[in-house]
Amino acid sequence: MLDTTPTDQVTAILNDFGAALEAGDIARATAMFQDDCYWRDLVTFTWNIATLEGRDAIAAMLAAQLAQTAPSGWRIAEGEVATEDGGVTTAWISFETAVARGHGLIRLKNGLIWTLLTTMVELKGHEEPLGFARPLGAKHGAGKHRPSWKEEREAEARDLGYATQPYVVIIGGGQGGIALGARLRQLNVPTIILEKNDRPGDSWRNRYKSLCLHDPVWYDHLPYLPFPPNWPVFAPKDKIGDWLEMYTKIMELNYWTRTTCKQASFDEATDEWTVVVDRDGQEVVLRPKQLVLATGMSAKANLPNYPGMDRFRGDQHHSSKHPGPDAYRGKRAVVIGSNNSAHDICAALWENDVDVTMVQRSTTHIVRSDSLMEIGLGGLYSEQAVRGGMTTDKADLIFASLPYRILHEFQIPLYDQMRERDADFYAGLEKAGFRLDWGDDGSGLFMKYLRRGSGYYIDVGASQLIIDGKIKLAHGQVKEITETGVLLEDGTELPADVIVYATGYGSMNGWAADLIGQDVADKVGKCWGLGSATTKDPGPWVGEQRNMWKPTKQPALWFHGGNLHQSRHYSQFLSLQLKARMEGIATPVYGMPETYHLG
Amino acid sequence: MLDTTPTDQVTAILNDFGAALEAGDIARATAMFQDDCYWRDLVTFTWNIATLEGRDAIAAMLAAQLAQTAPSGWRIAEGEVATEDGGVTTAWISFETAVARGHGLIRLKNGLIWTLLTTMVELKGHEEPLGFARPLGAKHGAGKHRPSWKEEREAEARDLGYATQPYVVIIGGGQGGIALGARLRQLNVPTIILEKNDRPGDSWRNRYKSLCLHDPVWYDHLPYLPFPPNWPVFAPKDKIGDWLEMYTKIMELNYWTRTTCKQASFDEATDEWTVVVDRDGQEVVLRPKQLVLATGMSAKANLPNYPGMDRFRGDQHHSSKHPGPDAYRGKRAVVIGSNNSAHDICAALWENDVDVTMVQRSTTHIVRSDSLMEIGLGGLYSEQAVRGGMTTDKADLIFASLPYRILHEFQIPLYDQMRERDADFYAGLEKAGFRLDWGDDGSGLFMKYLRRGSGYYIDVGASQLIIDGKIKLAHGQVKEITETGVLLEDGTELPADVIVYATGYGSMNGWAADLIGQDVADKVGKCWGLGSATTKDPGPWVGEQRNMWKPTKQPALWFHGGNLHQSRHYSQFLSLQLKARMEGIATPVYGMPETYHLG
Repeated sequence: MLDTTPTDQVTAILNDFGAALEAGDIARATAMFQDDCYWRDLVTFTWNIATLEGRDAIAAMLAAQLAQTAPSGWRIAEGEVATEDGGVTTAWISFETAVARGHGLIRLKNGLIWTLLTTMVELKGHEEPLGFARPLGAKHGAGKHRPSWKEEREAEARDLGYATQPYVVIIGGGQGGIALGARLRQLNVPTIILEKNDRPGDSWRNRYKSLCLHDPVWYDHLPYLPFPPNWPVFAPKDKIGDWLEMYTKIMELNYWTRTTCKQASFDEATDEWTVVVDRDGQEVVLRPKQLVLATGMSAKANLPNYPGMDRFRGDQHHSSKHPGPDAYRGKRAVVIGSNNSAHDICAALWENDVDVTMVQRSTTHIVRSDSLMEIGLGGLYSEQAVRGGMTTDKADLIFASLPYRILHEFQIPLYDQMRERDADFYAGLEKAGFRLDWGDDGSGLFMKYLRRGSGYYIDVGASQLIIDGKIKLAHGQVKEITETGVLLEDGTELPADVIVYATGYGSMNGWAADLIGQDVADKVGKCWGLGSATTKDPGPWVGEQRNMWKPTKQPALWFHGGNLHQSRHYSQFLSLQLKARMEGIATPVYGMPETYHLG
Repeated sequence: MLDTTPTDQVTAILNDFGAALEAGDIARATAMFQDDCYWRDLVTFTWNIATLEGRDAIAAMLAAQLAQTAPSGWRIAEGEVATEDGGVTTAWISFETAVARGHGLIRLKNGLIWTLLTTMVELKGHEEPLGFARPLGAKHGAGKHRPSWKEEREAEARDLGYATQPYVVIIGGGQGGIALGARLRQLNVPTIILEKNDRPGDSWRNRYKSLCLHDPVWYDHLPYLPFPPNWPVFAPKDKIGDWLEMYTKIMELNYWTRTTCKQASFDEATDEWTVVVDRDGQEVVLRPKQLVLATGMSAKANLPNYPGMDRFRGDQHHSSKHPGPDAYRGKRAVVIGSNNSAHDICAALWENDVDVTMVQRSTTHIVRSDSLMEIGLGGLYSEQAVRGGMTTDKADLIFASLPYRILHEFQIPLYDQMRERDADFYAGLEKAGFRLDWGDDGSGLFMKYLRRGSGYYIDVGASQLIIDGKIKLAHGQVKEITETGVLLEDGTELPADVIVYATGYGSMNGWAADLIGQDVADKVGKCWGLGSATTKDPGPWVGEQRNMWKPTKQPALWFHGGNLHQSRHYSQFLSLQLKARMEGIATPVYGMPETYHLG
């Protein structure tokens, strides 16, 4: 063993593993895993997004899927070597299946597999026209009556959705729909993206004035065309809007603006959706084979229903409709809620001389932006990481390779560091009466995001205003809305000229209910969350984001979205699942989870 | 010597060279060069774009410039090693001057310097906000009444050119003006770009329908934001138009559309230009310190003046105004000229069932697109090169390091290869009567481009139509235009419904004549060409592109442009020269050439 390099060790294990799989010897293959093991597969084996936890689960999956998958060619990825650190040996791997090429990451402990990530890179015979295979562009040679590129684009715009039907319709033209659309176009899957606003990017432009991205640039790149080196760390909303508008054009997406979906229904006999849309006042009926809801994590506003809302004499709106502070200078605002939108909105109101009170109903997890950037993301998504050779794709895959079941264990020490680093900051907040949490198990922001998509604020300055008493704090549940303000359960009256309900967003299957029907929404169930049995993420454990980027209980209905990283990374796997179906490639799905929760 | 690696050898030479320069020992420094030597400097020593040929020229430059330049820190660039091949030792180098950081390439033969390239990377204290230094974007902390990004952009658009004056005005909003504009914005130099058309990119959109780029994508990237991996090899005109439009917005350029310059004059007393423009019907007077003409290599149409043009009863236009073939189906076209535009236009006419005759007045150099791509450009600008580690910046610098005086020697063997590879093709053309050349000295396309900016066609299919007789050929000079067609000097009559004058473009100082005055145009002289004493590039030798990207005889007047590679690469050096002047950094220009030719 002393003379065996990590590369040799991993190569030998991959050879054994590959041989066992090729022989159909599931027992031998699973014996190569240690007790505490995880195999996360993005499409290649399971035609799903699935984590198999423990040898039994792995064996069951292989029993169902191995023969059809026919994996081979397991090796350390070209140009890579295995590394050893703290008892863990890690290597990038490549492999093939009958229909695809795959890439992944393996981690070993004591010669046994601890974590295995397998992901689909491309379908054989349907490789994307990139790099060496990029399209020629010009029409070389000579041929009569050939249309120009512009004429081809115009013909496509004229025909698709009318004379010809798209294979996929995506409802929602934000970054999720756009990223998926770009991947599908690369795979030559006819697709139409439906966007209710006037222009691509308006979903950002229409937000409150001071909004900037909360995730730093290295985390946010879209597929194929990363932000340039002069792009700001945190893009202002209008700048992101411009990028999305540009990207939609450059990627030649079929993107219908001013288009709302009125109704969608699936015909099991024809395996086809009927999607009735209003396109800028015209009704159009689309008949795609696949329907994707990319309506956004922050799209279906969750407006509370307090007694007395109808009698309030001032302005009131959900945070998603908040225009910014300009109309309220010198007035009084009450903001219900204490997470990201609430903080951003309160800070902007204060900056514009509005008397503002934040009503905190439950605890909030707060991290400072620079601490999160450096400690939370820096290893994978930062200028430093890029300079050290990290690519966006590798960062995404490393993150994807950390099993959700144990991810919190990796996160807790990082948040301990942040708690220590910013001790004075947190002391100041607590002194001001702000009620903090660190997630149910101290695992911090990203786990809260994965579990419930809410409950935190990435501090970019509002917390200091709370510490200094400039943003006033009130606590407790709202009893009712009066003509002149907010009445809390403990009797506190908060007079207001404007009330902002920064009360979050609902599960994306709410859109399925609105557009398709409650029965379908219930069949599909709640979107998002892992089943961690933590606040707002009830068990049982499902081990992957419910319903995201993979088959759902409603045939041919899919959900895409998440943050910019997830929109980017998971668009790869969703696009491949859709392409496979379009090409008639067999896609036997393994591991469809039960629907435990409706919303 | 046997134990000395190339890296050791170069390091030792750089140490000696640096020491000699620091000691002001010009004799010692120049003695390190071999007889046949070239030092090409982009700004760092000469505040010019200059090639010093031979030790005497190098000594003279150092005598004038060395003390003020104060170079130091000569070393092999970080992360690089010297390589040896065929008797030539090559290395990337870094160095500093009193005010700047530099980068370059050195080539040694037998321990002496053969070629040295020194280029300015950045001005100390004025580094671009890229990468680690990228702007934050969001406004962190809290401050009253801070404008949003959108408000800042709107304020800038409102004020610049009205309440405040730009430092630079660029006339011409094509890729040259746009690339330079992006660099200047990065350097925080207030700049306005003036474009006559409605939208950025229209200078491409308005060209003939079938136009695509003739240079492949790896050659064409703009600064900061390269084309993505799914971008076609040869972009169709409308797609490039879209990219330029997007780029202008993403780079936050101050870009005035529907704006023409009526008149410009320089006041030597105030060191300021007065530029009178018509902005969408409104007269605006701009007062920049620096004026850049980026009106394009293919902008000032060269329309011939044949007797009888006024009596022709059909359509006639310069190639720059050719709309495409659609209106001429079933008719007869005569195209005067046999270079790039002529071939593209003839092919498109034939494709659309137009009877077309090309009138060849002089020889044309033809290379096939794929041969040029592979043999001519492949080493530096190709997918293969990229995969092998070549970056656009390195490719640009390697190309810049080949002295113009001897560049043809490097090119001749490449074109010999192409002649051999495509022997049947050329035989077919000659059989059809097409008159070929390979440049005066067999050095092919790129030298023709550098010397005269014309005289070639990159074949993408039209040549086969000539070979097959589908595009008819006529030869000789035009005697006159009749009511019904073209009469050649040899008596041949070519009836025509449409005549296209594919007769090229004039020197960019023609724009200086139109906008500023003939006296200034004459003072500045002809733009472009090297003084090679070859066809259309009369001597004497000047050794650099006349008047391009560097100081001209008219104070504060500059010319920018060229192909996409030159627009990209030389925008770096022109932007630094302009920034230095704005910052009041001393810029003692060395080696302003004489004006030998007026146009």
